[in-house]
Amino acid sequence: MGEIMTPRILSGFIELLPGAQLRFDEMRRIAEEVYESFGFVPLDTPAIELSEILLAKGGGETDKQMYRFTKGENDLALRFDLTVPLARYVAQHAGELSFPFKRYHIGKVYRGERPQRGRFREFYQADIDVVGDGSLNIMNDAEMPAIIYKVFTRWGITRFRIRINNRKLLGGFYESLGLGSLSAEIMRTADKLEKIGEEKVRAIFTDDLGIPADKADGILSFMAHSGTGDKTLAFLETLRGSNALYDEGLDELRKVVEGVRAFGVPDENFAVDLTISRGLDYYTGTVYETTLLDYPEIGSPCSGGRYDNLASNYTERRLPGVGISIGLSRLYWALCDMGLIDTEARRSTADVLVIPMTSDRAAAIAAAEAFRRAGVRTQVYFEEKKFKGKMNYANRLGVPFIAIIGEDELAAGEVSLKDMRSGEQNRMKPEEAAKLAADVLSAEKKRPIVAEK
Amino acid sequence: MGEIMTPRILSGFIELLPGAQLRFDEMRRIAEEVYESFGFVPLDTPAIELSEILLAKGGGETDKQMYRFTKGENDLALRFDLTVPLARYVAQHAGELSFPFKRYHIGKVYRGERPQRGRFREFYQADIDVVGDGSLNIMNDAEMPAIIYKVFTRWGITRFRIRINNRKLLGGFYESLGLGSLSAEIMRTADKLEKIGEEKVRAIFTDDLGIPADKADGILSFMAHSGTGDKTLAFLETLRGSNALYDEGLDELRKVVEGVRAFGVPDENFAVDLTISRGLDYYTGTVYETTLLDYPEIGSPCSGGRYDNLASNYTERRLPGVGISIGLSRLYWALCDMGLIDTEARRSTADVLVIPMTSDRAAAIAAAEAFRRAGVRTQVYFEEKKFKGKMNYANRLGVPFIAIIGEDELAAGEVSLKDMRSGEQNRMKPEEAAKLAADVLSAEKKRPIVAEK
Repeated sequence: MGEIMTPRILSGFIELLPGAQLRFDEMRRIAEEVYESFGFVPLDTPAIELSEILLAKGGGETDKQMYRFTKGENDLALRFDLTVPLARYVAQHAGELSFPFKRYHIGKVYRGERPQRGRFREFYQADIDVVGDGSLNIMNDAEMPAIIYKVFTRWGITRFRIRINNRKLLGGFYESLGLGSLSAEIMRTADKLEKIGEEKVRAIFTDDLGIPADKADGILSFMAHSGTGDKTLAFLETLRGSNALYDEGLDELRKVVEGVRAFGVPDENFAVDLTISRGLDYYTGTVYETTLLDYPEIGSPCSGGRYDNLASNYTERRLPGVGISIGLSRLYWALCDMGLIDTEARRSTADVLVIPMTSDRAAAIAAAEAFRRAGVRTQVYFEEKKFKGKMNYANRLGVPFIAIIGEDELAAGEVSLKDMRSGEQNRMKPEEAAKLAADVLSAEKKRPIVAEK
Repeated sequence: MGEIMTPRILSGFIELLPGAQLRFDEMRRIAEEVYESFGFVPLDTPAIELSEILLAKGGGETDKQMYRFTKGENDLALRFDLTVPLARYVAQHAGELSFPFKRYHIGKVYRGERPQRGRFREFYQADIDVVGDGSLNIMNDAEMPAIIYKVFTRWGITRFRIRINNRKLLGGFYESLGLGSLSAEIMRTADKLEKIGEEKVRAIFTDDLGIPADKADGILSFMAHSGTGDKTLAFLETLRGSNALYDEGLDELRKVVEGVRAFGVPDENFAVDLTISRGLDYYTGTVYETTLLDYPEIGSPCSGGRYDNLASNYTERRLPGVGISIGLSRLYWALCDMGLIDTEARRSTADVLVIPMTSDRAAAIAAAEAFRRAGVRTQVYFEEKKFKGKMNYANRLGVPFIAIIGEDELAAGEVSLKDMRSGEQNRMKPEEAAKLAADVLSAEKKRPIVAEK
C-alpha cells in the first residue's frame, strides 16, 4: 500500500455532483436538440491543436492564457475557443462540405486565467455558426436570436433580452461625424457604457480620444435611442443618406429585426442596442449580446455576430459567416449561484428503484425491464441490506418511485409501487406499474431546469 | 493579410466529416440512453488533472505516454483513462455520494502513443462503473454484460460475444497446482493464447516460467473447457473442493452466468472463457472481454472487470466495484474500416430543406416551424440562388425531403413536399407535410448505424 494522497482537482477547474450534473447535461441536451432542429450538424474537433494554428491570428491575452506545451517535436496547445478550430476545420475540409455550412459545437475550452468567482479555466461553450462560401444571406443573422430564444425558454429562462446592433451602422455613423479613424476606439469605449456610466464614457471620448464635446454628445444621444424595434428603426431612418456604410448597416439591421420577429421572437426578448459592438474587430456587421433582465451583473451569457471572413489565416477562399456562443459553464454556475436552478428537477439518477425483499433476483430484473421498456430509468437494488438500509438508499438517491417485491408480490407476479412523494403504495403487475410511473414522470420531465423567481 | 497557413491537425488525432459525426454521435447517444436506463449518472471530470494524482498508482507505460506539462507552478497532465479520475472523484466526494454509486462517463482520454492504424492519441472511452462502500453484490457483475448487450444490439451489432472469466477461479486453480506464486505470470501468458497460439504459450510456461510439462498441459486443457454456459460450469464443478479461492471464484462465476441469463442476454452473445484475465493486477474477480465474431482481429472493443478497491491511493475507505469500458473511437473507426457503418443512416444534417422560390421568407420560416413542431429537423435555404443551385445544395446535403414554396404555394398557404428518394411531389398544408415527413422519418430513425454483412 502506498501513501494516501489527498484527492483534489486544480484551482480554477470544476466538476459537479450527480444531481447538478444531470441538470447541466439536460441543459446541454436541450441546446443540442434545438440546434439540430434548425439543421446544424454537431462537430467535434481535437482539444489539442498545433500552437501555430491556434496562434495564426496573433493575439496578446489569448497567447498568455493558453495551455501550451511540447510533446516530442510538436509545439501544442489546448484550444481556447471553438471559433479558431472551426476556421481551421472549414478551411481544411472546404471541398467536402456543403455551403452554407451550419455547425454546432458544444465542447470544453481552456484558458489559464487568474481564477476568480464564476470564471473557470476549463469550461463549456455551446457555439453555432453558419458559414457561407463567398456570401451569406442576412436572414441567417435573424435566425440566430430565434434559436437562442428557443434554447433559453426551453431551459425555463424567459426574463432575458437579446440585444442586437450592427457595426456597419456604427462605423458609418462615426464616419459621417468625420470620426471614421476613431471608429474602433469609440466602439470599444461605448461597449463599457453600462459598466462605467455615461460621464466616464464622455470623458474618454473628449479627453483620451480628443473628440470635440458636441460630437461626443451627439454619439451619446445617438446611442440613447436604443430600444425595442420600430421606434429605434424610425429614429435611425432619420439619419439615412448621410453615409453609404451607415445605410448598408441600417438595411441589414432592419432585415434582422423584421426577420427575428418573423421567427416568432416576442418583442420583450430582443432589442436594438446601439451601444454594443463586441469590441473585437473580427465582427463586421450584426452583433449580439444577451442580458438576463433580473441579473444584468452576470454579463452576457450569449454573444456573437457576423464576420466577413472566417478563415483568412488558413485559406484564400472567402468564407463569411454568423455565429453565436453560449458560455454554458459560466451561465450554469451563475444560475446556481443566484438560486435559479430548480434542484428538485432531475434530482435522481433513476426514476424507479426496484427493491427485492427476498433472495429471488429474477423477478426484480424482469420488473426493471418492464419499466425500461416504458422509458423509465430503473435501477435494481442488489445489495443485501435490512429493509431500513434499502429505504435509506432510496431516500438518498431521491427516486420518485420504488417498486418493492416481497414474498406476496413474488407469488402474485406483481410489484408494490410506492410514490415516494405522496407515500401512496399499490400492488399491481409490473407493466401496469411501468405505465403509471411513465405517465407521472413524463409530466415531470417537462419541468424546466431553471425556475425564475 | 498575414501568410496563409496550411490547415491541419496533429498526427494521431482525428476529426469526422458531418455525416460520420452524426452517426458517431448517434452511437454515443444510444450508449448514454442505455446507461441512463439502468440508473447510471453521467459524470464529467476535468480533462486536466495534477500529474501526481494521475500517477499515484505508478505505472511505466502510462507515464511515458502522458501529455504532461507545467503551467505556472503546477505539474499537470491530460487524463489517460477515465478510471483514475473516477477513483479520485469518488474518494474526494465520498461523503456526498450514495453507494452503490453508478456512474457513466463518455469522454476523451489522451495517450501519446506511437501513431498507428486505428490507434489514436485522443479518443473516446465510454465507461460504466458501479462502486460499493465496503461491499458490492455480485449481481452487479451480471448486469454489466446485459447493459453492453443492449448497447451493441441497438447499434446494430449482433455478431459479438462477451467473454467472462473470474480471476479468483484462475488464481485458485493455479494455487491448487502449487503454482500460486506464478499466478499473475500464467494469466498474462494465457491472455495471449489467441494471439500466439497454444504451442508458444506452452513453451513460455515450461521454458520461461519453469512449469513442469504435465502441469503446463493441465493448464492448457483446463482453458480448453471454455464455452457457453452450462457445460463449462459442469466441468468447473468437477474441480470443486480442491482450493477455497477456486470455489469462491466458481460461485461468483456461476452467479454471473445465471444473472446474465436472467437479464435476457442470449446464450450466443456471452461465454465463459477461461483464457482471459485482463492482465492488470487491478482486477480481482470477474473479468470481461468482447469479440466481434466476424472481426476478431480488431481485439476487444469492450473490456473490464471487478476490482476490490477502487481508490486506495486517495482514501482509506474500501470501495469495491465493477466496470466495463467501450473503446468508442477505436470501435467506430474499425466499423468504418470494415465497411459496416451504414453511410445512408443519418447522412443529412437536416430532414427537410425548405426552399423559398419567391422573395417572401415569412412563409418559409412558418413552414419550417411547423416541421420542427413535428420533431423534424428543418433548415430554411435563405440564399438567393437559381433553382438549380438550390437543388444542388439539397442534393449535396442529402436531405430526404424538400419543401418548395413558390408563388402558387404561397398564395394557397401550402408547400410542395418532395420525397428526394422516390421523386414524388405533392402540394399540401405545412402541418400535413410535417406529419407526413415525421411518419416516414420515424421509421428511418430506427435504422441502426451498423449494418452487419
